[in-house]
Amino acid sequence: MIIIKDDRLIEKTISTNYLYRGRIINVRQDQVKTGDDKIAFREIVEHPGAVAIIAIDENDQVVLVRQHRQPTGAVLYEIPAGKLEANEEPLDCARREFMEETAMDAEEWHQIFVFYPSPGFSDEIIYLFQAIGLKDVQSPGSDPDENIEVRKIPLAKAKEMVMHGDLVDGKTIIALQYVLLNNK
Amino acid sequence: MIIIKDDRLIEKTISTNYLYRGRIINVRQDQVKTGDDKIAFREIVEHPGAVAIIAIDENDQVVLVRQHRQPTGAVLYEIPAGKLEANEEPLDCARREFMEETAMDAEEWHQIFVFYPSPGFSDEIIYLFQAIGLKDVQSPGSDPDENIEVRKIPLAKAKEMVMHGDLVDGKTIIALQYVLLNNK
Repeated sequence: MIIIKDDRLIEKTISTNYLYRGRIINVRQDQVKTGDDKIAFREIVEHPGAVAIIAIDENDQVVLVRQHRQPTGAVLYEIPAGKLEANEEPLDCARREFMEETAMDAEEWHQIFVFYPSPGFSDEIIYLFQAIGLKDVQSPGSDPDENIEVRKIPLAKAKEMVMHGDLVDGKTIIALQYVLLNNK
Repeated sequence: MIIIKDDRLIEKTISTNYLYRGRIINVRQDQVKTGDDKIAFREIVEHPGAVAIIAIDENDQVVLVRQHRQPTGAVLYEIPAGKLEANEEPLDCARREFMEETAMDAEEWHQIFVFYPSPGFSDEIIYLFQAIGLKDVQSPGSDPDENIEVRKIPLAKAKEMVMHGDLVDGKTIIALQYVLLNNK
């Protein structure tokens, strides 16, 4: 992160007011003072943060999961992912979610990106890992509230899906483009 | 979008309950019936949707904006972007936001991706455009609530910023990867 001190863009928080406290998210409104001394209000969705895992097997197939996403009203293809638990390290979360969702672990784990999917209104942060050297393990079982289906898709096919708009999940597009740019 | 009928993953909405209605977002809880006939609850942030614009000038410089993002507590580099107004077409919104934020228009506009940045909890959808053939115009003026600073960064430098973690906005990573993959 590039930090520039005395930046006229920096906003100072004056007060914070919680408007909604939910099961996974909270909503708060911050009153801020802008760099040119105006008062503004910012509506913010607090989210615990998440991990996502890009994994390509020895046959150049990408591990994807299909899941109904109620906000979109559709079943989406995504890379395996899940929310951070309290005090959980991102890498531990990535291995846990990957095992739960796919019954696989990996020999090597590399953190490739840390990013904000929606910094305009949410503090959600995603830690994106690449898992290399996949091996089958016994799944500890998944969230009973989640119905997912694991699919292995040839990388070339996944690329086509991105280009044709059949793959519409942001973190999955980032992960696949990363792999394509790095020839892996 | 790939639609598979009789998909056991599809969830049916039983009821919807609004928990928060805000200035930009709403929060609702949907009660759903899963494919295996269980009842589950989904917490959803409704968002109006947004556009984002990747624009490279004739000197291979990317047009970025710097903006304080209160959810992240930091000033981020992002491609120009903005929220859809009611009944606004994504392309019209892209041209409007681009003019407001950068005082530029373009000869060609191509929609390159439509994606959900956070489909697990929000219906926010982003229409990503590439603007080609940039030209200066008079800015109609920006949102008085928004303080932004336009910066042109050489594409090679922007690529380094992504790789070194200095560029942490999801839509900007997707857009830059796209440009790098397509040699533009």
